Amino acid sequence: MTVEANPNDLEIVDAWWRAANYLSVGQLYLLANPLLRDPLRAEHIKRNILGHWGTTPGQNFIYAHLNRVIRAYDLDMFYISGPGHGGPALVANTYLEGTYSEIYPEIGQDVQGLQKLFKQFSFPGGIPSHVSPECPGSIHEGGELGYSLSHAFGAVLDNPGLIAACVVGDGEAETGPLAAAWHSNKFLSPVTDGAVLPILHLNGYKIANPAVLARISRRELSDFLCGCGWAPLFVEGADPPAMHRQMASAVDNAIGQIRDIQSAARSGYQTQRPIWPMIVLRSPKGWTGPQEVDGKKIEGTFRSHQVPLPSPALHHQYLPQLEEWLQSYRPAELFDETGHLHGHIAALAPTGTSRMGANPHTNGGLLLRDLRMPDFRQYAVVMRAPGDEEASNTTVLGRFLRDVIQANAGTRNFRIFGADETVSNKLNAVFETSPRQWTAPIDEQDEFLAPDGRIMEVLSEHLCQGWLEGYLLTGRHGLFNSYEAFIHIVDSMFNQHAKWLKVTLGIPWRRKIASLNYLLSSHVWRQDHNGFTHQDPGFIDHVINKKAEIVRVYLPPDANCLLSVANHCLRSKHYVNVIVAGKHPAPQWLDMEAAVTHCSMGIGIWQWASNDQEHDPDVVMACAGDVPTLETLAAVSILREHLPRLRVRVVNVVDLMKLQSGRAHPHGLDDRDFDLLFTRDKPVIFAYHGYPWLIHRLTYNRTNHNNFHVKGYQEEGTISTPFDMTVLNGLDRFHLVREVIERLPETSSETTYLGQLMEETLIRHRAYINEHGLDMLEVREWKWGAEDSGQLRDDKKLVRRI
Amino acid sequence: MTVEANPNDLEIVDAWWRAANYLSVGQLYLLANPLLRDPLRAEHIKRNILGHWGTTPGQNFIYAHLNRVIRAYDLDMFYISGPGHGGPALVANTYLEGTYSEIYPEIGQDVQGLQKLFKQFSFPGGIPSHVSPECPGSIHEGGELGYSLSHAFGAVLDNPGLIAACVVGDGEAETGPLAAAWHSNKFLSPVTDGAVLPILHLNGYKIANPAVLARISRRELSDFLCGCGWAPLFVEGADPPAMHRQMASAVDNAIGQIRDIQSAARSGYQTQRPIWPMIVLRSPKGWTGPQEVDGKKIEGTFRSHQVPLPSPALHHQYLPQLEEWLQSYRPAELFDETGHLHGHIAALAPTGTSRMGANPHTNGGLLLRDLRMPDFRQYAVVMRAPGDEEASNTTVLGRFLRDVIQANAGTRNFRIFGADETVSNKLNAVFETSPRQWTAPIDEQDEFLAPDGRIMEVLSEHLCQGWLEGYLLTGRHGLFNSYEAFIHIVDSMFNQHAKWLKVTLGIPWRRKIASLNYLLSSHVWRQDHNGFTHQDPGFIDHVINKKAEIVRVYLPPDANCLLSVANHCLRSKHYVNVIVAGKHPAPQWLDMEAAVTHCSMGIGIWQWASNDQEHDPDVVMACAGDVPTLETLAAVSILREHLPRLRVRVVNVVDLMKLQSGRAHPHGLDDRDFDLLFTRDKPVIFAYHGYPWLIHRLTYNRTNHNNFHVKGYQEEGTISTPFDMTVLNGLDRFHLVREVIERLPETSSETTYLGQLMEETLIRHRAYINEHGLDMLEVREWKWGAEDSGQLRDDKKLVRRI
Repeated sequence: MTVEANPNDLEIVDAWWRAANYLSVGQLYLLANPLLRDPLRAEHIKRNILGHWGTTPGQNFIYAHLNRVIRAYDLDMFYISGPGHGGPALVANTYLEGTYSEIYPEIGQDVQGLQKLFKQFSFPGGIPSHVSPECPGSIHEGGELGYSLSHAFGAVLDNPGLIAACVVGDGEAETGPLAAAWHSNKFLSPVTDGAVLPILHLNGYKIANPAVLARISRRELSDFLCGCGWAPLFVEGADPPAMHRQMASAVDNAIGQIRDIQSAARSGYQTQRPIWPMIVLRSPKGWTGPQEVDGKKIEGTFRSHQVPLPSPALHHQYLPQLEEWLQSYRPAELFDETGHLHGHIAALAPTGTSRMGANPHTNGGLLLRDLRMPDFRQYAVVMRAPGDEEASNTTVLGRFLRDVIQANAGTRNFRIFGADETVSNKLNAVFETSPRQWTAPIDEQDEFLAPDGRIMEVLSEHLCQGWLEGYLLTGRHGLFNSYEAFIHIVDSMFNQHAKWLKVTLGIPWRRKIASLNYLLSSHVWRQDHNGFTHQDPGFIDHVINKKAEIVRVYLPPDANCLLSVANHCLRSKHYVNVIVAGKHPAPQWLDMEAAVTHCSMGIGIWQWASNDQEHDPDVVMACAGDVPTLETLAAVSILREHLPRLRVRVVNVVDLMKLQSGRAHPHGLDDRDFDLLFTRDKPVIFAYHGYPWLIHRLTYNRTNHNNFHVKGYQEEGTISTPFDMTVLNGLDRFHLVREVIERLPETSSETTYLGQLMEETLIRHRAYINEHGLDMLEVREWKWGAEDSGQLRDDKKLVRRI
Repeated sequence: MTVEANPNDLEIVDAWWRAANYLSVGQLYLLANPLLRDPLRAEHIKRNILGHWGTTPGQNFIYAHLNRVIRAYDLDMFYISGPGHGGPALVANTYLEGTYSEIYPEIGQDVQGLQKLFKQFSFPGGIPSHVSPECPGSIHEGGELGYSLSHAFGAVLDNPGLIAACVVGDGEAETGPLAAAWHSNKFLSPVTDGAVLPILHLNGYKIANPAVLARISRRELSDFLCGCGWAPLFVEGADPPAMHRQMASAVDNAIGQIRDIQSAARSGYQTQRPIWPMIVLRSPKGWTGPQEVDGKKIEGTFRSHQVPLPSPALHHQYLPQLEEWLQSYRPAELFDETGHLHGHIAALAPTGTSRMGANPHTNGGLLLRDLRMPDFRQYAVVMRAPGDEEASNTTVLGRFLRDVIQANAGTRNFRIFGADETVSNKLNAVFETSPRQWTAPIDEQDEFLAPDGRIMEVLSEHLCQGWLEGYLLTGRHGLFNSYEAFIHIVDSMFNQHAKWLKVTLGIPWRRKIASLNYLLSSHVWRQDHNGFTHQDPGFIDHVINKKAEIVRVYLPPDANCLLSVANHCLRSKHYVNVIVAGKHPAPQWLDMEAAVTHCSMGIGIWQWASNDQEHDPDVVMACAGDVPTLETLAAVSILREHLPRLRVRVVNVVDLMKLQSGRAHPHGLDDRDFDLLFTRDKPVIFAYHGYPWLIHRLTYNRTNHNNFHVKGYQEEGTISTPFDMTVLNGLDRFHLVREVIERLPETSSETTYLGQLMEETLIRHRAYINEHGLDMLEVREWKWGAEDSGQLRDDKKLVRRI
């Protein structure tokens, strides 16, 4: 099944490699004289040399060899550059194969194009030094290291014909996310997914240190990779001809093994998890670059990480060494008179979309198909009146997601990811239509596991996020469900993805991809049983630091709103949507029609809970989030019972970005609409799901901001009861009522009495749970006043009465 | 070197194990009748059963066996519970060994104490279900998984006599941080550090899924662990007597190997990196618990993860099964009449501080010694006038840190951690006194590597953070230097550490530990060369969501302030200190005396740069951060040149928390002082290092807040020039001047002219860098007005003139 590498081929491969190396050095150093047709002079050279040489020649080597096998075996393959600092390599190769000039016609295949190619690199107004979204053929930016392998796996899910060649740097290999990702092979189906070909590039050094995997014995390294379930093929050395032969043989071998594995699995002959091949390439850092500069060894050391030679524009003494280095690639043999790569070398590249820079999977929006969406309204919780029914919001959502999976089973372009929490987050219904995908052995007692499934679960948020990003970037859809607190584990991955989305919005040839949807459940207010470590609503704060064009945050107060929001998010493109929703049974407020209206506005007055219809309100009770909404409505019930003349307006916020001004976020309300909702001068008691100061940050320039009094999570909590979590943070109904009383312009005997009643109730609450371990009232009900007074009320009745 | 396990010992070990299991089940279920001396009835049982059984019996098994070897070999050992959900196990064992009752005398060694022990578990007002700070002997809370092994390594650094027995759950083993941490053995010195004994606990399941490492072949698992540099010893089965024999032999073997390795290394006989032993314990999840409930298999499946039996208080049918389960441990044989563990079983435990629950390393504050600090003033940048000198702030700091290392070389209680960035962050001077610690092979070309060194570098922020936390928690000092953007990688680890600090503040027997100090350099404003992926100042926003008692943020404007701040942070206790400081040469503003005064205030008017001495200012120019300070002073220079009658006040903020009110943060200014600085009604143009809305969030309730106009990072940036980074985000001197002009109550011909001049200058700036790739002005200088007008000024002169 292997095609013997032809020695002629290897000369061409070497010529390609030299051309790519030449173009890489050119990008780093040259402003002009791109083919050295004049003697090199200082004014041809950039003064500020920015970029990374160390990884570049190795990556050029790999790219050249992959070109050969793509042609030889007619592969559908693309390239992920883990050591993403090697921007010059990917730019050089995609330029040589022609894709670069097709996308950027001003960078033509001629001397002038070469000059522009060189100048733009790491130059203001030009392109970044890393493999960036501007680079064709890339779905992976190497700024922050660790995610290449999980991106590769995400990309090949449901793409059985695709191979992701994933170059992993030995520096990147030290990161946690990368270390975890080796085990992704326990989840990959050889039947319905494609293949990942990892190429571990041991060039020995990071910025200033040796790399761990490059300094363990060959035996340990081999054990390690075999232990991770891979069959490593080693390519080691520094001599180019010998290395070409080794590499060609290894790549042929790997492709042969991949094809054997896939055909054995797809014919049903082999059902066990396969041992996939991978390549270990050990080559010198800064290979083919300067050996020594100023008496210090450069090639093969950490000193070649960035720029091996200082700029000869400023330090003329290095001019001969730069010229010698550039000439060592023999550019005159590589490029014709016009500056075009000679045809016999250019022929190494595959053609059309087989070129790695033109692989449509790497511009996922090209392949994106809208999801087929069932009508979310049919999953509605039916109710006669607000507060009349109870439901677990995520359980309801689970049924909808189940049918989204079902509706898109044929196109296989939707998956759900999670860190072993899909059942815990009560999305169980999805397992009625699809198991979790798992290709390790399955035991009798296991539930919902199969080699082919739509749910991906592994106890690594990094892997979940990386897989999902790879899946989205190649034109598919997905959702990540997580415990709210632990989504911070991927803060920095979110950062990088949001940055990718922002930059690609400005690149015309990049098509929009599906949104990255987070469902955060098991949230802060229901971590009374797991305690303080599981309580953190700060991901929202983190997310909204990123560009407003990209980020959306939703806090649906009940199941019908959650359905409406989820439907919207799954249809959306090129956003990061954060949805926070509880999983425990909770009162339902809006019927489906009302929910759709409310969610499409994103914010609104709940007239049925307000009594300011005829007048201006005395107080606005605002709420965002399911638990704050419940507590607010319970507080309103108390207020209406005790202070019936007080005019209370209830405002519920689903779309948090509505609070910002329209100048700050596209969803933002203009000031007039904001003032209509929140008044210009009345107290606003705002019960918010997360850290309270976030509401101030969003509303600080609103007219009535000085009257905003926000309650939220104050980093207080331990093992307690669900209701007590709200008490500990002052978000509960009793504190809210007290807050209202304190903010009213006048006191009366009624307000004084009510304030005392709230105080006493809080004291009794504390005593009761300390004694019984249970709330004095069920979370979803409330009971106030003296226990022996018979004044027992529950939300349902009171809300109905409103 | 091994002590033969005595069969009698193993009977005692088994009795201890049964006792610990009994106490664990008791904690989960019982409110009363703790020794089952009455027939079990519903009212003896908790209604709400919260906690995790699955991992608990395995951990009890391990703890019992470790007790045996601590006694046999007189070890200094403590226990880290990676699967931290197993709170009942650690509580049970520390109770049995006596430490629990010593710390909590109300939980005595009698029937009443047992009853309290049981009731408090996962009960409001009681203790969390996870291994929490309340639990003696613990430095590691298992809420968020992944950090056990890095904590263990951090703990044994510089503790040559200490062994950290680190139980790693097979769920936790899927996380990235844990996967990376196996390789920590390439950094551990067998001479000067202690040993980590990892015990990989394969109980097969997570919450709802099988665990990856439990479902690969024994061969793959062995390869994997060997490949990570460990010598695994396997203990596998379910039959208690056989398992006791296997485990005793494995633990003896491991201790023998550790001692052999250490003595070979310490005698100088062996200098290569050793292969350390570890144990793989494969035992059923929920071992010894109910086999089957409601026809479903429980022991050995994921169903035993939390609570195997529903509460018999609510579901009486489970009462017999619970009683049978409890009785299976034969409590009558274990506890005497008073409820005390029988003496011959209790004797398994070591005594005094040899008990793992009483090991002083686990209450690091007990061992904490203040650092010996050189006088930071002697590293001062000397200047004649503000702006007169230039220096790289972190380079200056590096010299101070070098001497901190030197001064504490004898006590070996200070280390610096970083992800291969210590040189890049320009702390190079530290290598004059200490190399990086690295026990893998060292090549001729390597720099600053040795098997014993004070600097720890690995390309994993997770490992750096985990090691440092372990080091601090065991009573030592340290600093983590990082690129600013990539510190987000450890957002969630910071969360958990901050939560630990907050909770331990409220636990009287826990002593304060040294602060966790972050030095964030290579910051957002100097990532013009690496580009957008390297730009993120949001860690500050993340940090200040945590409790005000714990978090501190410093933005020193120059080297002398940085020295003063660093000196303060290194002396401080029980905080997380975030220091942001640039590494590139930059103007220096304050001489040492002024810097000390300024930093001790944390905020202040820079009179020398202001001209409002005789009057109220017309405008306040505030700044926080080194680059914003430079741009503000440059803007002030322009304003003073062009609008000499304008009264400008310059306020510089070092301690960001000064901006908050005193109610929100202990460092907060009271409103009167704040108003004295920022006025009650004048425009405040605030140039801030990070996301601008953070300043609004901190100041929203200040008198003059509506006049605050903040400039900061707006998530705009790419490959450009350093100065252009400020322009792209509107933080540069020209935008600041325009902002002032726009906020003045009146316009004049001078202000109109100056506004136009700024506009034109910005246009010329853009054209210039697009052409030349360089700033029209050096970052540290400025030039305004027509280039041909000869009006060239630089900061130095202008500032001096002020």
